[in-house]
Amino acid sequence: MTSNPLSKVLRTAQREKGVRVSARIVPKEVPVALSYGGTTHAVMMATPDDLEDFALGFSLTEGIVSSASEIESINVQALRVGYDVQISLKDAANKRFEARRRRLAGPVGCGLCGIESIEEAMRQVPSVAGTSWLIKPGEITQSVELLSLQQTLHKQTGAVHAAGLYIPGKGIVAVREDVGRHNALDKLVGALARQGVNAAEGAMVITSRVSVEMVQKAAAIGSPVLIAVSAPTALAISTAEQCGMTMIALVRGQEFDIFTHPERVRSGAAPNVA
Amino acid sequence: MTSNPLSKVLRTAQREKGVRVSARIVPKEVPVALSYGGTTHAVMMATPDDLEDFALGFSLTEGIVSSASEIESINVQALRVGYDVQISLKDAANKRFEARRRRLAGPVGCGLCGIESIEEAMRQVPSVAGTSWLIKPGEITQSVELLSLQQTLHKQTGAVHAAGLYIPGKGIVAVREDVGRHNALDKLVGALARQGVNAAEGAMVITSRVSVEMVQKAAAIGSPVLIAVSAPTALAISTAEQCGMTMIALVRGQEFDIFTHPERVRSGAAPNVA
Repeated sequence: MTSNPLSKVLRTAQREKGVRVSARIVPKEVPVALSYGGTTHAVMMATPDDLEDFALGFSLTEGIVSSASEIESINVQALRVGYDVQISLKDAANKRFEARRRRLAGPVGCGLCGIESIEEAMRQVPSVAGTSWLIKPGEITQSVELLSLQQTLHKQTGAVHAAGLYIPGKGIVAVREDVGRHNALDKLVGALARQGVNAAEGAMVITSRVSVEMVQKAAAIGSPVLIAVSAPTALAISTAEQCGMTMIALVRGQEFDIFTHPERVRSGAAPNVA
Repeated sequence: MTSNPLSKVLRTAQREKGVRVSARIVPKEVPVALSYGGTTHAVMMATPDDLEDFALGFSLTEGIVSSASEIESINVQALRVGYDVQISLKDAANKRFEARRRRLAGPVGCGLCGIESIEEAMRQVPSVAGTSWLIKPGEITQSVELLSLQQTLHKQTGAVHAAGLYIPGKGIVAVREDVGRHNALDKLVGALARQGVNAAEGAMVITSRVSVEMVQKAAAIGSPVLIAVSAPTALAISTAEQCGMTMIALVRGQEFDIFTHPERVRSGAAPNVA
């Protein structure tokens, strides 16, 4: 189920040559509840397209399911405001999820103390050290160029993030966009799962900055290479280092920075330590 | 309590003139638990400075307290990973907060259904229609220029958001930065409350895109004008329209777009509707 993700508004444009009222396209942002077994797990502000991909991808990157086959059904319901996405898990996954939910729920509401809550937030990230394919500098440049060609919503609004999977020799095989960068990544992961594409065979390419959650989510589906247009945080870098992920960021044309595991980048020259 | 918000890492810089390993400054991102009465209300990934401002600002913009005087104490505890910020509310505010928490907590964990969760997310936004001071186009341009001069962390990292309060005739009176745009705004709100500055007398200036949450948070403290460097979402625009907030976005030098309530922008010429 997909509704129009764009909206047209009138705005007063103050320009050097004068002031005029004209139309501009902006992205929609609506509350989307992700509910498992009838109970909401999270409400995200998201762009209302590709919501099945979003629900499937979120379930995978948050470790609620380990494969798409553990999901019985995904049912998108339009509400007066926003959407409720009802996800039904198959028996084993459902038991696991309910046990986790009970463990997290204290006697009063979500009554975790600070230490427990933070340990839940800093969950273990699976290793992606096993995959060993190499990427060329020219392919890194190309991945960002090809992604930008497919940023349909961003071209119209200048206001949404994109995530795509780049496979050397094949280009960008899927792209998803959203006002939220985590949502764009989750939608992409769902799309890849539905298409049967193995994320470990390509590089995840994102337009946004790299927070630790982007690394956690990419690692959760086995992505060994993360390429970002913008800059990373210290925790994103240390997490990528630990889980064996190659993080390339600040891609500007043919120039970029490799923050972790440069051994996956095939290079003509050995680096000079300065 | 403030720890160093920056970290130095080595990265492989691929440049046109060659490859070399050199240092780069990146922002820290750590889990910060905000706990009321010993129970965590939220865990945010944040830059670990100005955490008292953050806790106070969050309490205000989320409507947990209506003024700083309702807070008994804020106590920042460093954990092995991250921080637990213990907030103690005075009696009346505490009773209100506990009642809200009980209302939200279903029999199993945070068991709200999709509709309830979304209605909680889409809380009522207070009106800021009462304030009627005007801002000049040149002041809008100046507000963004002055903010950029004070973006200390961003200058070093290129990777953090800023929020500042601009008061016509006084300039930017306070600035806060964070890897998260909501956190930067919350830290600013806390700083303003501690300095006794009334946010209604100035414009909130932010470097990021405008999601609905930025409008909700700005309105919660009575801010009548929101100036953003980047673009807004449709829901942010409709929310600003409804609550009487002037939203100016996409500020590029002397050019900008007024999305809502242009009557607060003093202009030489009447606009042409095109």
